Amino acid sequence: MNFRLVSQQLGLLLLVLSGILLVLVGVDLLLWRDDTATLQALLAAAGVGLVAGALMFLLRFGAPRHIGRREALLLVATSWGLGAALAALPFFFWAHFSDAGVGSPFRNYADCYFESMSGLTTTGATVLKDIDTLPDALLLWRSLTHWLGGLGIVVLFVAVLPMLGVGGKRLFQVEAAGPSHEGVRPHIRETARVLWYVYLGLTFAAFGAFFIATEMDLFDSLNHALSMMSTGGLSTRDASLGHYDSSSVDFIASFFMLVAGINFALFYQMTQGKWRLAWSNIELRVYLILKIVVIAIVTVNLLGTSIVSTTGRVLEDASWFNALRHATFATVTWQTGTGFGAADYDLFPYLSKALLVGLMFVGGCAGSTAGGVKVVRLWIVLKILAAEIEKAFRPDVVRPIRLGSVAIAPELKLASLAYVLGFFFTIGIGAVLVQVVEGPDGQCGYLESLTASLSCLSNVGPGLGEVGATNNYGWFSTPAKIILCVLMALGRLEFFAILVLFTPRYWRGN
Amino acid sequence: MNFRLVSQQLGLLLLVLSGILLVLVGVDLLLWRDDTATLQALLAAAGVGLVAGALMFLLRFGAPRHIGRREALLLVATSWGLGAALAALPFFFWAHFSDAGVGSPFRNYADCYFESMSGLTTTGATVLKDIDTLPDALLLWRSLTHWLGGLGIVVLFVAVLPMLGVGGKRLFQVEAAGPSHEGVRPHIRETARVLWYVYLGLTFAAFGAFFIATEMDLFDSLNHALSMMSTGGLSTRDASLGHYDSSSVDFIASFFMLVAGINFALFYQMTQGKWRLAWSNIELRVYLILKIVVIAIVTVNLLGTSIVSTTGRVLEDASWFNALRHATFATVTWQTGTGFGAADYDLFPYLSKALLVGLMFVGGCAGSTAGGVKVVRLWIVLKILAAEIEKAFRPDVVRPIRLGSVAIAPELKLASLAYVLGFFFTIGIGAVLVQVVEGPDGQCGYLESLTASLSCLSNVGPGLGEVGATNNYGWFSTPAKIILCVLMALGRLEFFAILVLFTPRYWRGN
Repeated sequence: MNFRLVSQQLGLLLLVLSGILLVLVGVDLLLWRDDTATLQALLAAAGVGLVAGALMFLLRFGAPRHIGRREALLLVATSWGLGAALAALPFFFWAHFSDAGVGSPFRNYADCYFESMSGLTTTGATVLKDIDTLPDALLLWRSLTHWLGGLGIVVLFVAVLPMLGVGGKRLFQVEAAGPSHEGVRPHIRETARVLWYVYLGLTFAAFGAFFIATEMDLFDSLNHALSMMSTGGLSTRDASLGHYDSSSVDFIASFFMLVAGINFALFYQMTQGKWRLAWSNIELRVYLILKIVVIAIVTVNLLGTSIVSTTGRVLEDASWFNALRHATFATVTWQTGTGFGAADYDLFPYLSKALLVGLMFVGGCAGSTAGGVKVVRLWIVLKILAAEIEKAFRPDVVRPIRLGSVAIAPELKLASLAYVLGFFFTIGIGAVLVQVVEGPDGQCGYLESLTASLSCLSNVGPGLGEVGATNNYGWFSTPAKIILCVLMALGRLEFFAILVLFTPRYWRGN
Repeated sequence: MNFRLVSQQLGLLLLVLSGILLVLVGVDLLLWRDDTATLQALLAAAGVGLVAGALMFLLRFGAPRHIGRREALLLVATSWGLGAALAALPFFFWAHFSDAGVGSPFRNYADCYFESMSGLTTTGATVLKDIDTLPDALLLWRSLTHWLGGLGIVVLFVAVLPMLGVGGKRLFQVEAAGPSHEGVRPHIRETARVLWYVYLGLTFAAFGAFFIATEMDLFDSLNHALSMMSTGGLSTRDASLGHYDSSSVDFIASFFMLVAGINFALFYQMTQGKWRLAWSNIELRVYLILKIVVIAIVTVNLLGTSIVSTTGRVLEDASWFNALRHATFATVTWQTGTGFGAADYDLFPYLSKALLVGLMFVGGCAGSTAGGVKVVRLWIVLKILAAEIEKAFRPDVVRPIRLGSVAIAPELKLASLAYVLGFFFTIGIGAVLVQVVEGPDGQCGYLESLTASLSCLSNVGPGLGEVGATNNYGWFSTPAKIILCVLMALGRLEFFAILVLFTPRYWRGN
């Protein structure tokens, strides 16, 4: 194992994050002029990052340049954990330097780490109760952790991992094999560059749409655009997007969240003029049809009920328009794992809640920043289950399972089933562990431990009950927060990249 | 499709059940002399069964004698449903003929059907609150439905289905392939005969143990033996086995339930003198080790806590002996899906409850009357998950997954994963459906809908909360009871035999 090369790359990550913190300091001085304590916190965090990053970078000196599969996996698994450790520092220092930080959850480093891990994994769960009191620079930093984490995920899963032949690759093999047998371009650097442009372009479009078409101000538009295109969900407002109580905000957000849940490889194809190929993608079609069906059911289910917005305003006897608006927003925000809140979903009728929780589990498309098990995996799994049922009366008939025109390889079948099943097991184990450390009689009931575990693993953010859209994760004990951080990282990196580090064979080498 | 032959076989089933009812009438007249209404109820039920059975039997006239795979599947799937319909009649008629039946849940046929389906699937969930008030003949009939259902399952899964090449067969292929490559004897009739003797012998042994070594009377010993060896769980007492508050009852029951959760094919091997082969069975070893580990954890967890028996007696500051006694009983009764109650498991510490619910899902060994996904399937699935993790850093290494010395065939891997995953999905869908028909604000909370769904699908019986060991299923609405009946049948017949009937291809034929 070439530890020194891994150390260099991790050092580089810290240096980049510190650089962004320094830019943030500059912007702050120019625009908002936050109080001195905030600037000191940002500078201190950047300083720690620069020193640690430089040391780790220099450690590499003399190591061979080759990066193998094992090094890449170690790098992926540790980079989120280490990145979150640095990204948490501005929160931590601010809480200790500033008078406003007294009484803030950020006095506790575990809370800061939870917030930054939630940011970098684009989960969007927060420990904060009074978000509005945070200085602007820290609010932007929260949104930026989402955006940077999302960028990392897109590049990783669409450009890097397929080259290594792990994780997403097996899904993209299927994805990419359309009529022309031409998928994402194989060159990492070039693909990553195009993806970066697509991601940046979509973020700008969302930013512009919020700023121009709604009453959201410049700062909030930027923050929500950053948070949205990464399907993160952290907001600058306590009441999340429900703060604006505006149907145009809700519909614009729904549209962009829907887009953010689509495989970025398809956007790449579109930039190459292959619209027809992108449109013929089975996962995209299933994703859209599922959305339409669930929105229709939830709309009918909400019709005539009282919808309570996250600000507490009650919308009685919901009309078709309002039912559709909230059904669309809720469905998209839960499925893509963004987790913005517009209404208090705890008060939705039971069927709608059950469907939303189900969608949380499904997630968006592979190769997007959305969470869950991913639409394509679930589609493959359902096809396999149907085939298994048929086997009961025709055990000898072997029928290839297809995704579009491509027969699914046996390893991919096994991998998809194993992934979805592993996801289920992890939700259960996570819920039990959280409940064990929280005890049976506290604020954490079965509903909380279960939906918090599912929500963090699916990188959604809110759950139901005490972790619902109008509540937060601040009340969990430190051990529970650590467990939830692990779940966020496991979900974000699709398990195996992390779990593999716990197998003896990995460390023994070949 | 040879419907007439299927009809004949179903008719035969009804005739046999009616015959048993007539024997019950005879025994009743000789021994207990229950009131006239009870005798009338039994006779009326037998009469309906005889007429319907004879008609269905005669319908076959002239049909070809060949029974194919599709006919066998239809027969299996319908026989439990139809058998339960007849087995419910004595309860229904009694509630309407007898004065004692006024106010009984059995006035509602759906409740009777729930009780008999729970009996025949060896689930052991009851709608009854005051079990002691039931006449002896009906109590024995409840226990007999367990025992007959269990016999049917053992013969079906160990002797019949393997011949058809469906369901259990693929598990037994692995099972049977020991060093001598000799497993269950291929001849259905002979195998079934031996299994019947084993089952009968074990039941007699349990009956004798209860009657001789404990203070249980003859009638209760018989009923509990019938209910136990089929891993059913219906008791003649409101407080279930906790009624006796006796450590010898608890330990004897634990031992026999443990035995009942073992693959009956192994008992067959033992009768052939192949002790070593039976002992080398991987599933048996995993089953026993899992038991020991969980009992140890639960014992430590219970130590010093207050254990409340199902009669309400509080055992404060539990000693090692009592902790071990209740941990053993609880672990075995939940894992095998018997569902007898000795303590109020709702009051157990959280970790113990979580482990017990987990065991409910695991279930006993394949080829036993226990429920759940079966130990061998879960073992295979865990091995596959471990192999998938390794693939992250060695995508090209293909390592065969073994069960003992035998490599697991690819189809068996896929089938095991699909089964366990289908089980998870069904628990979730079942819980949501139950909750939808029960509404959000009634007696049925999330804990109730989830554990009732899991418990019925796993053929255990009790769940947690309002369906816990000291409660019953009587309060569910009729639609919820029907859903739970479907879950019991799905779990008992391992899904595919039933679900296949809903695929168009099955009905279109080849």
